[in-house]
Amino acid sequence: MIERLAIVGIGLLGGSAAKAARAGRLAREIVGIGRDRGRLEPAVADGTLDRATTDLREGLAGADLVILAAPVLTNEALLERTWPLADANAIVTDVGSTKAGLVRTARRLARTRPLAFVGSHPMAGSEQSGYGIARADLFRGATVIVTPTDTTEPRAVKTVSAFWEAAGARVATLEPETHDRVVAAISHLPHLVADALVDAVRRFEPGALEFAARGFKDTTRIAASDPVMWQEIFHGNRESLLASVQAFREALEVLEALVRRDDPAALRATLGDIKRVREAVR
Amino acid sequence: MIERLAIVGIGLLGGSAAKAARAGRLAREIVGIGRDRGRLEPAVADGTLDRATTDLREGLAGADLVILAAPVLTNEALLERTWPLADANAIVTDVGSTKAGLVRTARRLARTRPLAFVGSHPMAGSEQSGYGIARADLFRGATVIVTPTDTTEPRAVKTVSAFWEAAGARVATLEPETHDRVVAAISHLPHLVADALVDAVRRFEPGALEFAARGFKDTTRIAASDPVMWQEIFHGNRESLLASVQAFREALEVLEALVRRDDPAALRATLGDIKRVREAVR
Repeated sequence: MIERLAIVGIGLLGGSAAKAARAGRLAREIVGIGRDRGRLEPAVADGTLDRATTDLREGLAGADLVILAAPVLTNEALLERTWPLADANAIVTDVGSTKAGLVRTARRLARTRPLAFVGSHPMAGSEQSGYGIARADLFRGATVIVTPTDTTEPRAVKTVSAFWEAAGARVATLEPETHDRVVAAISHLPHLVADALVDAVRRFEPGALEFAARGFKDTTRIAASDPVMWQEIFHGNRESLLASVQAFREALEVLEALVRRDDPAALRATLGDIKRVREAVR
Repeated sequence: MIERLAIVGIGLLGGSAAKAARAGRLAREIVGIGRDRGRLEPAVADGTLDRATTDLREGLAGADLVILAAPVLTNEALLERTWPLADANAIVTDVGSTKAGLVRTARRLARTRPLAFVGSHPMAGSEQSGYGIARADLFRGATVIVTPTDTTEPRAVKTVSAFWEAAGARVATLEPETHDRVVAAISHLPHLVADALVDAVRRFEPGALEFAARGFKDTTRIAASDPVMWQEIFHGNRESLLASVQAFREALEVLEALVRRDDPAALRATLGDIKRVREAVR
């Protein structure tokens, strides 16, 4: 049981973490911290938060678990401000989808003061955002990747993993750098590609958009995601993302060459191969 | 009312056209034609077809509406064989997703004998295929693009449009070349890109696939489509597809440059712009 849970940023993920904690009685008190008082009010009004504050120091006081749930680059700045303010026994985590930068920041801050931090990334979300769509079961069945390093305190991993498991998630552990390559591959690259696809159709044949059917809609659904959040993710995971784009470009060139060539069997074989890889994804 | 409807190829689309015709009493008799007797049996057994044959001449005899529902390149070969065999008053259409090649073939065949042909493309389908998933309501709410040229007989457009409308579809009309660019943009390019995405992840970070969540799954769902069908579509629409790939590559390069640069506002603006385009797609 967490005595006091402090969540910075009460949007989709932060709000859902609060709701999950409330529904599962995972914390005795839940405190929401945000920049905009008005945006915190709905979560107090509906009983998800016990109280809300725009003052980071006040919100962190006495918290034994702190979750940073702002956009990824904002989380890095928040970690800097949180580090000296958090209780000595507090455990700090985040919900951001890139980790190398945050972990570098934590490593640097650890030289100023010991604090139990470990990154976590709940792989749950939506092309929509905001507290309005937060829900207690957002993490149910989702995977949360926890990203300890060789200097992470084991109790941080233990508490943070237990929190997400109690919220219904499966917890997996990856090194921060591996995590960033994994999410570049299965999340950030697909986002960038979906964005490029929408933009390409507009350039190539704008009138085509009115004929869009399920294939196009599914493939580009994530292109409707929040630009503020995704600018931070793309820039936050720049290195792995650009490397994955390079791999994508190579894969596209191989397919393009097969479309150009008159070798039906070769194209069929490659498509069959890709179909098998995709079908193995559950 | 169609006296005799002949459908060549009883897979997802051909089978669904037969089921829709049966359910809506659109034809007095429905004849299925295919290469493999065993594959036609289920549609006879369940009452969708009145009879089935592997003999094209026999199947076409007396038919007033003929629908070619094989893979796209096979349809071109079938059109060659159908042209001299079909009744003088027959109307012939297809359900393929590329049109320029088929219409060129029809134009050439028209010099041998007049026959009322018009292409049609029901924009309904699935990453699955085969008669097993055919259903009477597949076309309900779908768009069917009919592709007349300046020499198409108006009664072909009228009969074929009426058939699809009776099956529940909305009918739109496009020139064959425009059609091919439109479907390259909103269907064939997204397919190729989804294929490249699956292949890229495997190349870049194979272990990432086990962490795939909804975003990746939706974006790449169509990469599990039938390789035989899609080889024919990609090669059948080669010219427009390669042109759309070029537009895609340019769009990707613009985004990549924005990821590389340290200009958050510029990346946000472009992502916001793309989000608006995507959100306008209904």
